[in-house]
Amino acid sequence: MHTFLIALDLVGTFVFAISGATLGVRKRMDLFGVLVLAFAAAVSGGIARDVLIGAIPPVALVNWHYLGVSCLAGLLVFFRYHDVERLRNPVQVFDAVGLALFAVTGTTKALAAGLGPMGAVLLGMLTGIGGGMVRDILAARIPVVLQSELYAVAALAGAALVVLGRSLHLPGAPTLLAGALLCFGLRYLAIRRGWRLPVAQSRRN
Amino acid sequence: MHTFLIALDLVGTFVFAISGATLGVRKRMDLFGVLVLAFAAAVSGGIARDVLIGAIPPVALVNWHYLGVSCLAGLLVFFRYHDVERLRNPVQVFDAVGLALFAVTGTTKALAAGLGPMGAVLLGMLTGIGGGMVRDILAARIPVVLQSELYAVAALAGAALVVLGRSLHLPGAPTLLAGALLCFGLRYLAIRRGWRLPVAQSRRN
Amino acid sequence: MHTFLIALDLVGTFVFAISGATLGVRKRMDLFGVLVLAFAAAVSGGIARDVLIGAIPPVALVNWHYLGVSCLAGLLVFFRYHDVERLRNPVQVFDAVGLALFAVTGTTKALAAGLGPMGAVLLGMLTGIGGGMVRDILAARIPVVLQSELYAVAALAGAALVVLGRSLHLPGAPTLLAGALLCFGLRYLAIRRGWRLPVAQSRRN
Repeated sequence: MHTFLIALDLVGTFVFAISGATLGVRKRMDLFGVLVLAFAAAVSGGIARDVLIGAIPPVALVNWHYLGVSCLAGLLVFFRYHDVERLRNPVQVFDAVGLALFAVTGTTKALAAGLGPMGAVLLGMLTGIGGGMVRDILAARIPVVLQSELYAVAALAGAALVVLGRSLHLPGAPTLLAGALLCFGLRYLAIRRGWRLPVAQSRRN
Repeated sequence: MHTFLIALDLVGTFVFAISGATLGVRKRMDLFGVLVLAFAAAVSGGIARDVLIGAIPPVALVNWHYLGVSCLAGLLVFFRYHDVERLRNPVQVFDAVGLALFAVTGTTKALAAGLGPMGAVLLGMLTGIGGGMVRDILAARIPVVLQSELYAVAALAGAALVVLGRSLHLPGAPTLLAGALLCFGLRYLAIRRGWRLPVAQSRRN
Repeated sequence: MHTFLIALDLVGTFVFAISGATLGVRKRMDLFGVLVLAFAAAVSGGIARDVLIGAIPPVALVNWHYLGVSCLAGLLVFFRYHDVERLRNPVQVFDAVGLALFAVTGTTKALAAGLGPMGAVLLGMLTGIGGGMVRDILAARIPVVLQSELYAVAALAGAALVVLGRSLHLPGAPTLLAGALLCFGLRYLAIRRGWRLPVAQSRRN
């Protein structure tokens, strides 16, 4: 199970790195800028979580798999950009997979570090959405998670299910999978059906 | 006194959350984006301070009052936006109250964590201005504290007075109140009278 | 040697603070905004490194030299802006010196904190480029290190040479100097000769 989780974590790293590298190419960054943005998108959420729970140094700086997988994704996007653009929808789906996996593994790590239910849910959500926020800040645009369809809400729901399962003493692995499926399902349906949360009415933009 | 301080801290959280939520509505974020921006504006300064003094996990992730107060402020702004827009000036005044409270409580926490005078003043200022900086970065604009009337200077003055009082062994509570009043007074007068620091002359913008 | 390194570190702080202050004046920030941006550009890389290796509180908040040197640089730029604009090229050269010094001292601190080779190289690079990234984020523009000529690559090369020298048990001081020279040389040649990394072809910008 532990190995399986690490494998899923690296899949999440890979797809988030692809999203960062794609934005870097669009903003006409050079090869190294693209790799930096891929790595930042993939690991920033996890690094913020590790700093906030005191897990120093963060695993993404100690375990070379995260850097390797990020660079692989960045090189792939850089040299096969037209193929990636064509894959547009599959990338969004993989991104939803990454969001789901990071939200539940982040929640689990926060619980293991002794945080209470609220802190664990917040940190799980932060692990899921943090990488995309840093990616968008570095590209000087408003983070899409603040504007797009049920993105952060999906991460919140998955994280909350993990905490709920833990407090009911349900077995760990199925709870994690259920949380990840809930998050992925919400996000996937939001993409497919264009579900949106309401926007307040304002006289100025 | 301790309970009184916590109450004031939560008032500061509330008014900063209102400033974040207001910006979120103006940028046409959805309901959840508004809540995230409200929470980020309210707690980022305190979280940065806690990370830098090693108070892990940060109090805003452990004590649910901060999240609750932030969400309450965010919902209020979202569903009563026109009323908040009309209250414009009172909000700026409350914002000055929050700045003053966070600056002096942040300085006190940094001194209690063993930092020297300079570090405590810097961290007090950071606690006061950090939330607004994160709020503006997430909204992809230059932080107003870097551009507006005596904002950071007021926080610096309040923090410095707390450190000065501590080094002269003055009683704690009155020193805190004096620091908060100094910060609030400077900021309030700067708003009312349009006081500004000088801007250097540059041939290009 | 230790005193020599600290002196070089403060030179790096000074030149990075000049870059921050110059950007602040161009963005028409007031005096205090200019000082804040100077300090942020000078110390953010080092503070991020200290947080990630658990060196709390960060040295830049404890040792007043960093604040003093940053404010000195900020005041100089504010009151002598036209002279600084004329010095344009020398500033870029000093900036390359700062990048080189921060990259090798950051790598050394990370190794001393027990990080492995990969983590030390990443943190050395982050120490070198972090200040400029925060500076540009605060000014609401895409960090130039993601777009300009061999900037982060030069920091990476210098950091990697320090780690290589350490793993071969070469003497410390010459290794540091060699790493700094490699970083400075790459960056300087990139500026002078307009060396750039490739940019991927994209149908949209």
